[in-house]
Amino acid sequence: MNLAIVGATGVVGREVIKCLELRNFPITNLYLAASAKSVGKIIKTIWGEIKVREISSKLFEQSDIAFFTAGSEISKLFAPLAKINNCLVIDNSSLFRYDPLVPLVIPEINGAEAFNHSGLIANPNCTTAIAALPLWVLEKNFGIKKIIMSTYQAVSGAGQAGLDELEQQVIEYANHQELVVSKFSHQILFNVIPHIDSFQSNGYTKEEMKVVWETQKIFKRPDLAISCTAVRLPIKRAHSESVVVQTKSKVSPEKFKKLLSQSVGVELVDDVALGQYPTPMTAMNKFSVEIGRIRQSLIFGEYGLEFFISGDQLLRGAALNAVEIAELFIN
Amino acid sequence: MNLAIVGATGVVGREVIKCLELRNFPITNLYLAASAKSVGKIIKTIWGEIKVREISSKLFEQSDIAFFTAGSEISKLFAPLAKINNCLVIDNSSLFRYDPLVPLVIPEINGAEAFNHSGLIANPNCTTAIAALPLWVLEKNFGIKKIIMSTYQAVSGAGQAGLDELEQQVIEYANHQELVVSKFSHQILFNVIPHIDSFQSNGYTKEEMKVVWETQKIFKRPDLAISCTAVRLPIKRAHSESVVVQTKSKVSPEKFKKLLSQSVGVELVDDVALGQYPTPMTAMNKFSVEIGRIRQSLIFGEYGLEFFISGDQLLRGAALNAVEIAELFIN
Repeated sequence: MNLAIVGATGVVGREVIKCLELRNFPITNLYLAASAKSVGKIIKTIWGEIKVREISSKLFEQSDIAFFTAGSEISKLFAPLAKINNCLVIDNSSLFRYDPLVPLVIPEINGAEAFNHSGLIANPNCTTAIAALPLWVLEKNFGIKKIIMSTYQAVSGAGQAGLDELEQQVIEYANHQELVVSKFSHQILFNVIPHIDSFQSNGYTKEEMKVVWETQKIFKRPDLAISCTAVRLPIKRAHSESVVVQTKSKVSPEKFKKLLSQSVGVELVDDVALGQYPTPMTAMNKFSVEIGRIRQSLIFGEYGLEFFISGDQLLRGAALNAVEIAELFIN
Repeated sequence: MNLAIVGATGVVGREVIKCLELRNFPITNLYLAASAKSVGKIIKTIWGEIKVREISSKLFEQSDIAFFTAGSEISKLFAPLAKINNCLVIDNSSLFRYDPLVPLVIPEINGAEAFNHSGLIANPNCTTAIAALPLWVLEKNFGIKKIIMSTYQAVSGAGQAGLDELEQQVIEYANHQELVVSKFSHQILFNVIPHIDSFQSNGYTKEEMKVVWETQKIFKRPDLAISCTAVRLPIKRAHSESVVVQTKSKVSPEKFKKLLSQSVGVELVDDVALGQYPTPMTAMNKFSVEIGRIRQSLIFGEYGLEFFISGDQLLRGAALNAVEIAELFIN
């Protein structure tokens, strides 16, 4: 298959390359493209050194599938160009996710919908994607009434600039220098910032509403009650989420754990006596979402569970999901 | 008044001294006491330099009130000695908090109960104390049905050793050295650890259950449904909490904000257009708990609110509360 990555030099773009390598994706040609300032860069892959090229009509003409990982503006500009060149777009931006005609796909949950595409398939938000895997186990087996979530999100969710700013502030602090703030709205080192993406008129941020809108769409449950508080932390990689769920039928930690052990995309890390529970440090670079701290809810009793998850938002929450969508189209 | 501080060299003990100074507490004599390894140390105060002494019968004989800030073991050993010497104990440990005969007091909420003491008054857990102030405004005015909380807690909640470990890991990281882990169960720099205090048989940690037990006791609402997920972060000082509340009667962000503006112990920091919301960096060293991100709950609709708080857990959540209890006994 001929593949293109648009935004190949960004944090998600590089994860897509790594993912294609690790999963031995059957590639005939891999084309890497990016904005003007990265054109000409050389990226090493297991298929040889690849020179970053411009985003062009020819790129899409040569490609069967293009991964778009360069943000909404680039998707808006170039997705139509890919379409007229019969190149299927797997788009990681939020631009098309809420379009009823665009499938929003997590292959482990609703992979079949990918085939209803009209040239474009949307990849979910990373925070949504990580939580959806264990939540779907509850939805399928017990039915979900309510989801209440608080997140613990890494700076790399804001791209390379976010990661750089945390690294730089650590060095500045260690050298007794003043901390420079530019990417985030406040100092991120030693801080907690309850603000990711723009604020909406209802007081929630767009990041929080993405979790609501996307979970409802992927689960085909527009009625599902969900709320989220999204918080940025001085963590390099992997998002964590504290989740409280009310179910329609009775549920227990034991039943949920048994079902999780038979599920793909999730890894049960839940032995508190041994100090084992999900953390970003252990979840990073994993294909699965870590889940633990599973306990009966003190709020919803026999109809509720509480748990904690950590998942690599760049890999599991973005690149891997996109590559898994592409894998559906391997003949 | 003659005051003693037991554990005067610890992180909370030092905050109590600072608090007594800032509030011009009418002190005749201030006695500072600590464990053997700190005896003889000199601590500078606005009442002169004070030499740290042993915890003894004489200490309590000379004192009207003793603040205990050295943990449960010291409280267990020495609170009885204070009592037989007619010295009122204000205890910051969790040891006596759940004894129905011991008042558990947040002066802004249930100050009158302090006078029902039998020689000892318990100071609440810092995470509980911070949340209780805004929650009490909801309880008084709308009645609370359910509270769902996830916390973002600073390393200084684990004492000086916790703070030192984070500082040391920052320096080690900046110098490309291996990170030494000793106080926390995992590396804390760049990490999220959903584990504070010991695990209970119901799967919740003791820190989480403290929030449940203590809020129920302080609010005199043993039926109140509360759940908590308590998480340690690489933050130096001030705890934050993401809170979802279901109320008994209809509530709105506007009504809640108006009531908060008339309340003591809380500071409304809620102008998202200006990037203003609670953060530990702005909440530290404040007497008030910062509250913001107030919005109608997507889960509980007109009967629910969601908000975010940050409060200095050493000062507002511990020392200030203890000093305010002592102030009730100034003639």
